[in-house]
Amino acid sequence: MKIEGKNSVSEALRSNVTVNSLVCQKGTDSDIVALARQKGVKVTFVDRAVLDKMSADGRHQGYIADITDFVYCDVDDILVGEHPFVVVLDGINDPHNFGSIIRTCECAGVDGIIIGRNRQVAVTDTVVRTSAGATAHVKIARVTNVNNAIKQLKDRGVWVYALDMDGQDITQTDLKGSVAIVVGAEGEGIAPYTKRCCDGVVSLKLKGKVNSLNASVACGVALYEALRQRG
Amino acid sequence: MKIEGKNSVSEALRSNVTVNSLVCQKGTDSDIVALARQKGVKVTFVDRAVLDKMSADGRHQGYIADITDFVYCDVDDILVGEHPFVVVLDGINDPHNFGSIIRTCECAGVDGIIIGRNRQVAVTDTVVRTSAGATAHVKIARVTNVNNAIKQLKDRGVWVYALDMDGQDITQTDLKGSVAIVVGAEGEGIAPYTKRCCDGVVSLKLKGKVNSLNASVACGVALYEALRQRG
Repeated sequence: MKIEGKNSVSEALRSNVTVNSLVCQKGTDSDIVALARQKGVKVTFVDRAVLDKMSADGRHQGYIADITDFVYCDVDDILVGEHPFVVVLDGINDPHNFGSIIRTCECAGVDGIIIGRNRQVAVTDTVVRTSAGATAHVKIARVTNVNNAIKQLKDRGVWVYALDMDGQDITQTDLKGSVAIVVGAEGEGIAPYTKRCCDGVVSLKLKGKVNSLNASVACGVALYEALRQRG
Repeated sequence: MKIEGKNSVSEALRSNVTVNSLVCQKGTDSDIVALARQKGVKVTFVDRAVLDKMSADGRHQGYIADITDFVYCDVDDILVGEHPFVVVLDGINDPHNFGSIIRTCECAGVDGIIIGRNRQVAVTDTVVRTSAGATAHVKIARVTNVNNAIKQLKDRGVWVYALDMDGQDITQTDLKGSVAIVVGAEGEGIAPYTKRCCDGVVSLKLKGKVNSLNASVACGVALYEALRQRG
């Protein structure tokens, strides 16, 4: 969806809305551009005539942004069942991986996904497309601080496990009851402090030489192990 | 790797080598071009001067092909252990999915992968890259007829299961011993006759509304369930 004008674009950048990209008039060097860049939004500069053509009503004021119409929920909205089954994502930057994870969460009957604002792709159009429609059926909460969200989960009686190397075998871990699984970025893994916030670390067996699964595959294997145990 | 000249290119197209793409001189309409197209190889036509520039030694004769230096094995090379653990792919067209599956197979300690020549991407450069190096450690056999390969597996005492909808719960199926899992394309699934060649059909639980996992995620979940049972 396109939005235009200084105020609309500025507000979108400050709110919970996902801004996919921003088109500005050539030479613009404003707070809005700085904010967009800070948020990792792709900024393109074009001639005024191009903006005039793109604009629906001519009131673009030098700014047209493309946003995704996705409504995030709160963490509390996810914790409604007797035994919540939650996924926390820490730094999944690849929209295809994120889309695939949302799709898997939907199939595995996860109650909701919690994502951070930093180092983590939002629900962009690519994510919606890759999820094969699953974004319409899965609750996603976007929080400022993933570590605080993990503490919130623990306060509510949820056992929070980091999915990473060097943990206990996930098939030997009790994943029944109220459980959250934290999945980190490929390569970097889960941030050290975030890992320490968790109740424990669970791992998948790795029998080969490459020893690293794709993040969405690893997440799928972990969720289906939980599903098997939860019966 | 680049190869050039009529004979080299023609031979590559007729052999087990993976031809990624073919560049020909403008106006060429030969058996080689027809064969390349039949094999699904991307053919590009350029001026002779461009071929001259691309050529290492000037002996391109109007043909330069890009090939992948991957050596396939035979099905027998895979069936060497006491209890083989095999994956058969039927129609995985997306190189990213194929690469991700190879990576997962390597991590799960699969003895080898069997792929067909039709409706199935070969081990191209994209596949090698997406596999994160796993193609160097996993045996892959490329067969003319997947159904015959399945019969060959059954003759050797391997239990062959199709991973598809409407089968028995995979967590309730004995996957110890000699086992092969057949994974089909997303959407289309496993070809009906191929499915009938298998000993049985196993399924993953689907608790959502989207009800379809990404092929590489589904394969990962199935392999790790087998790994859990195999201890």
